[in-house]
Amino acid sequence: MVGATEAAIQAGNVVRGTTSPNPPVGCALVDASGELIATGATSPAGGPHAEVNALREAGDRARGATAVVTLEPCNHTGRTGPCSHALTQAGVARVVYLTADPFEPAAGGAEHLRDRGVEVVFQPERVAALQPWLRSVRNNRPSVTLKFASTLDGFTAAVDGSSKWITGEKARELVHQDRATRDAIIVGTGTAIADNPSLTARYPDGSTRPVQPRRVVVGTRNVPEGNLTRLGFEQYATPEEALQALWETGGRDVLVEGGPALAASFLELDAVDAVQAYIAPALLGDGRGVLNRSIADTIAHARRFRTTCVRPVGNDVFLEMEKDVYGSR
Amino acid sequence: MVGATEAAIQAGNVVRGTTSPNPPVGCALVDASGELIATGATSPAGGPHAEVNALREAGDRARGATAVVTLEPCNHTGRTGPCSHALTQAGVARVVYLTADPFEPAAGGAEHLRDRGVEVVFQPERVAALQPWLRSVRNNRPSVTLKFASTLDGFTAAVDGSSKWITGEKARELVHQDRATRDAIIVGTGTAIADNPSLTARYPDGSTRPVQPRRVVVGTRNVPEGNLTRLGFEQYATPEEALQALWETGGRDVLVEGGPALAASFLELDAVDAVQAYIAPALLGDGRGVLNRSIADTIAHARRFRTTCVRPVGNDVFLEMEKDVYGSR
Repeated sequence: MVGATEAAIQAGNVVRGTTSPNPPVGCALVDASGELIATGATSPAGGPHAEVNALREAGDRARGATAVVTLEPCNHTGRTGPCSHALTQAGVARVVYLTADPFEPAAGGAEHLRDRGVEVVFQPERVAALQPWLRSVRNNRPSVTLKFASTLDGFTAAVDGSSKWITGEKARELVHQDRATRDAIIVGTGTAIADNPSLTARYPDGSTRPVQPRRVVVGTRNVPEGNLTRLGFEQYATPEEALQALWETGGRDVLVEGGPALAASFLELDAVDAVQAYIAPALLGDGRGVLNRSIADTIAHARRFRTTCVRPVGNDVFLEMEKDVYGSR
Repeated sequence: MVGATEAAIQAGNVVRGTTSPNPPVGCALVDASGELIATGATSPAGGPHAEVNALREAGDRARGATAVVTLEPCNHTGRTGPCSHALTQAGVARVVYLTADPFEPAAGGAEHLRDRGVEVVFQPERVAALQPWLRSVRNNRPSVTLKFASTLDGFTAAVDGSSKWITGEKARELVHQDRATRDAIIVGTGTAIADNPSLTARYPDGSTRPVQPRRVVVGTRNVPEGNLTRLGFEQYATPEEALQALWETGGRDVLVEGGPALAASFLELDAVDAVQAYIAPALLGDGRGVLNRSIADTIAHARRFRTTCVRPVGNDVFLEMEKDVYGSR
């Protein structure tokens, strides 16, 4: 069953960035001997959910099978029929789900399945791909991840403003991979004006990836002609307006990439759910900080998170911290 | 043989902080079937080296055995006889060493052993316990590790000066464990005056550990009555003078604990060999930095290191970076 759990989680990971406003769910079907029959993941909005995709791939072999799903199967007729019904109709004998569905209209899938004689097991696990969506439906706004690359002493640029390259190639590649899993990338007007960014998700050779996030600028200053005006972007006056507009148009998982004033504003709003830092093993002593101002008058008021990931990336270090963690035991 | 290598490395780790000016070497003896016969580690200066301690423990069983030693056996009569001779006299058949001895008067042990029919294998490996000593004999000054605890955005205290506690209990325990492995702890007069530190290595219950580093203050201001005057300390006017005096009196591995001005001075001298950071998953935005001034005018001149360790410590993260790494493949 460990193999099936892994397969379901992996299937969900692959579709991150393509499913909003739906969650990137993964499903694996295994037969009685534990052999993997099929996997499926959430299609883009309006398309089938993970369970239905897996059932289609499995065909008749689904009868008597076990379905492992990263999220409790929905019991709700939205643009697609309820997954709990599809599972019973296909004759699935057992459903294992890793996360309970907190979204009221869709919940109740487990109960529907049990009522129809399906064995249902809740096997709680922290599914990384679902964290942003779970936070978004809880908060009624997109999940916000603050991302930065800095030296070990907390500088994103030297005193002369230079910042290329603080971190190495592998870290930069990871940033672009990550961008492709988000619904939007947000920067402040200061960054938009100073850096002429593309805010695209690219491959190491510079070509663009097939899935691109929305490009969002926050602030009231005009963005001059450049990459953003060429590629297209949205602009909102404040972080609150940006989050509201993104939420209403299906944005569930957004990345704030700076600059230091915008990052501080999101933190002051208490609207940062996760922080991802790429830390270079380097010291500068002074320069541009991660934030442009104090957000805590004393140590007891520091914004604190939970460390959820620590790993080397080339010669740099990737750290992830989250405010709330769902689904962990 | 993996087991014996581990046992030798572990034996050396245990005596860190007690062997200077000698290196903390570990030795493991295994018989022909690979069974561990004995381990030994360097005694305090004037006492036997690791090989001799292991041979004493093994007695007659050393005949025909394999000795795994973290450092090439010395061929030098200092306060003790040469280890290479002790190994041949005991009838050891094979010697595996993990690091070549760079210290001219002591080198040549491998050759002496080969000349007497002992099979000698150099199996290069990065032995963490030996890194400070290897750096010190190369540079003719103590190895310097800069240590700090900071928020993810690089602050060691909030804007009001408060810093207790940035990191959690486990990180603080690790700091005290680490202090016990060093020859000296160095702080600036600013820290000595403002913080009234003890600079002792303590257990979590506050009691002092059996092995204590030397307490060193750098600067010309007077240290007022307090913990340091009570416990005893050394004072030097400048980092250069401190390093010179420590080197001449056997100091090989010292820790600079701040403050930010002293840390910057050591970096500007290019006298920081390793950096150890305990990073709390917290953001402050402003406060006291790791360094009190810029040490690089542009990003290309940032002081760069190699990441050698990344791991979670409670809810905090421990990062280690080193300038030069010896013995890695």
